[in-house]
Amino acid sequence: MDSRRVEALADGIFAIAMTLLVLELHVPALPASASSRDLMIGLWSSWPKFAAYGGSFLILGVLWIGHHNQFHYIRRADRWFLWINICFLMCVSFMPYCTALLGSFIWNRAAAAIYGVALLVTGAVLYGQWIYAVRNGLVVHDAPPEIVEATGNRILFGLVGYVIALGFLLVSPLIGLALYVLIPLLYLRRGGIDRHLAAEHRRDRPE
Amino acid sequence: MDSRRVEALADGIFAIAMTLLVLELHVPALPASASSRDLMIGLWSSWPKFAAYGGSFLILGVLWIGHHNQFHYIRRADRWFLWINICFLMCVSFMPYCTALLGSFIWNRAAAAIYGVALLVTGAVLYGQWIYAVRNGLVVHDAPPEIVEATGNRILFGLVGYVIALGFLLVSPLIGLALYVLIPLLYLRRGGIDRHLAAEHRRDRPE
Amino acid sequence: MDSRRVEALADGIFAIAMTLLVLELHVPALPASASSRDLMIGLWSSWPKFAAYGGSFLILGVLWIGHHNQFHYIRRADRWFLWINICFLMCVSFMPYCTALLGSFIWNRAAAAIYGVALLVTGAVLYGQWIYAVRNGLVVHDAPPEIVEATGNRILFGLVGYVIALGFLLVSPLIGLALYVLIPLLYLRRGGIDRHLAAEHRRDRPE
Amino acid sequence: MDSRRVEALADGIFAIAMTLLVLELHVPALPASASSRDLMIGLWSSWPKFAAYGGSFLILGVLWIGHHNQFHYIRRADRWFLWINICFLMCVSFMPYCTALLGSFIWNRAAAAIYGVALLVTGAVLYGQWIYAVRNGLVVHDAPPEIVEATGNRILFGLVGYVIALGFLLVSPLIGLALYVLIPLLYLRRGGIDRHLAAEHRRDRPE
Repeated sequence: MDSRRVEALADGIFAIAMTLLVLELHVPALPASASSRDLMIGLWSSWPKFAAYGGSFLILGVLWIGHHNQFHYIRRADRWFLWINICFLMCVSFMPYCTALLGSFIWNRAAAAIYGVALLVTGAVLYGQWIYAVRNGLVVHDAPPEIVEATGNRILFGLVGYVIALGFLLVSPLIGLALYVLIPLLYLRRGGIDRHLAAEHRRDRPE
Repeated sequence: MDSRRVEALADGIFAIAMTLLVLELHVPALPASASSRDLMIGLWSSWPKFAAYGGSFLILGVLWIGHHNQFHYIRRADRWFLWINICFLMCVSFMPYCTALLGSFIWNRAAAAIYGVALLVTGAVLYGQWIYAVRNGLVVHDAPPEIVEATGNRILFGLVGYVIALGFLLVSPLIGLALYVLIPLLYLRRGGIDRHLAAEHRRDRPE
Repeated sequence: MDSRRVEALADGIFAIAMTLLVLELHVPALPASASSRDLMIGLWSSWPKFAAYGGSFLILGVLWIGHHNQFHYIRRADRWFLWINICFLMCVSFMPYCTALLGSFIWNRAAAAIYGVALLVTGAVLYGQWIYAVRNGLVVHDAPPEIVEATGNRILFGLVGYVIALGFLLVSPLIGLALYVLIPLLYLRRGGIDRHLAAEHRRDRPE
Repeated sequence: MDSRRVEALADGIFAIAMTLLVLELHVPALPASASSRDLMIGLWSSWPKFAAYGGSFLILGVLWIGHHNQFHYIRRADRWFLWINICFLMCVSFMPYCTALLGSFIWNRAAAAIYGVALLVTGAVLYGQWIYAVRNGLVVHDAPPEIVEATGNRILFGLVGYVIALGFLLVSPLIGLALYVLIPLLYLRRGGIDRHLAAEHRRDRPE
């Protein structure tokens, strides 16, 4: 099966999971005639939900970029690959629930741990998908070996980060949650893959 | 009408139905200051909803793969084919409701039977769509006859499975529900279609 | 602007509107230990919601096919065309609300009238979009005039049907609602457009 | 990374955000046997929600057209561009919440200000995305300079409009809200970009 169809489903599920996050934000339960001040207080009191919304949106953005970087090198899909991908998408579509849980119980260690474990599992499935694709010849033949390795390492890096964050959670929820937000931000930096893609682009279309 | 547009709508509806399943999972109704232990107990008590979520996601994944395998061989759509396909998509988009019903009433025979009948009807429409496409020349001309037959038989196999599961439901809900989960897992095995697609791929791009 | 991008947005909105219909179906508010009989009674009592769900899904299916038939002949989009299309999509995305209203108040003339007027407005915008495209040269140049006319007439036919249905609503809600369901079924019949598309297909790929 | 994949995610998020707006419209809480008159009164009393729905749908339509006009000239995406785009999509997917807030508290200055500030931020991110793309060579090389400038100015024009609307909000919510609706309507007028796209189209396919 062509990998493009898998991407269409994945893009759809990412788009929906990212947009469904907003359904967890509720309008304050105040009368329509509430004063501006009461409304601001009502909104302020649900800051954990807004924080969870912003954080989860960014994390899903990181995962989407990671998924797409993989598919830049994947040309074909077999049945097992499809199934690993469906498991990955199940993890992605589960994120709105974890976000709702964390937004409702922000200082609760169990809620924070579930959120972190969900991210770990999601990352692990994404990593497994890449390893499976590499070992079963689903990757394009001219993919440079250093990029194949860098793509895997980039995911591993995040997995290690979330294991550390889960460890800190036992000591202090505040540090653990701060790490949850910090790790995706580290993905902002340009990596070897970006340099390779830019070089590939320059080579293809010299201007 | 070109079959690609039908696929775009189908991919969209599958992606949304799969992601909407998560809206049936509710955060436990506990105060924000609830202890980790209370939260875990609250989550545990709604295990049927999580089980229904996971099961339905996998089943929709099986159906999506089945739908796409069909469209690999379909090149054209006429009005009746479009309508059979819309009926199929109606069944798909109905799955979140059946899932909610089963998640709320896990040991209720009526809920389990409705879920099973919905799957049966969905599979039957998918089967009917394939038969219609084959008989009305909507399938590509170089599709090998053994694959055309295998594609139909693969769906029939699941239909028979769900009839058996519905029968067991009368004896014991536990066995019936276990079969519901088991049948999609059987679709993991590589079939004749996979071997054919892989052979086709090797032939098209010898490396 | 290329018309393909407009189609991507339209396919997305149709897919979501069709799938969101299911959120209006609620699980009966019964204890988890309810008997099968109580569950069936609970489900039966909300038959108007199921009927509204099925009817609206079919109607959205008709509209989607109509929208796609138009875009088969449209190659380009200007700003006004985009805006007419966005108004059409606003009507489409409003359908889940009308469906919820009709499902909650099935024998209420106001609810049935709102549903019918919404369909009328949706059809009128679709008709206006086609007329605008034809008059402003957005249609492909080799579109046969009889097809251009038939495409418009097909929509007009439904508009007249819904005006008649709204008239009958004043006499009897039952007849009015029956017509609502009957009109989309009439679109099942093969029309001039289908014959033309089939002929075009045979001409392009003689086998 | 190819810009087409970014567009697929964007189209998905726009389609979902536009369709989720409808979930904020609730069926009046009346008994199923309510009279037509009671139903109409119930619907009328929630006019602010309908107004917010219509306004937000149009504004998202304007933003979608603006996003697509940009991507007509963008051929490539780097990591920072992807991140600016994800921030833009986060703003877009936040609109249903702002709409719900404004629909619930229509005469509340805080709700109206939050809505306006959200629009300002969304527009500013869209503007920043364009400036970043222009300065970092992500734009096609044959894009005429006057169009590159006009695309930016068109967004700036809306930003200035919403700053003015926010100013009027301090004086009178009515004038402020009226401006919110008026500004997107101004985007209906044909601009330099449309003339350029039409000319480009005529040049590419002289008939």
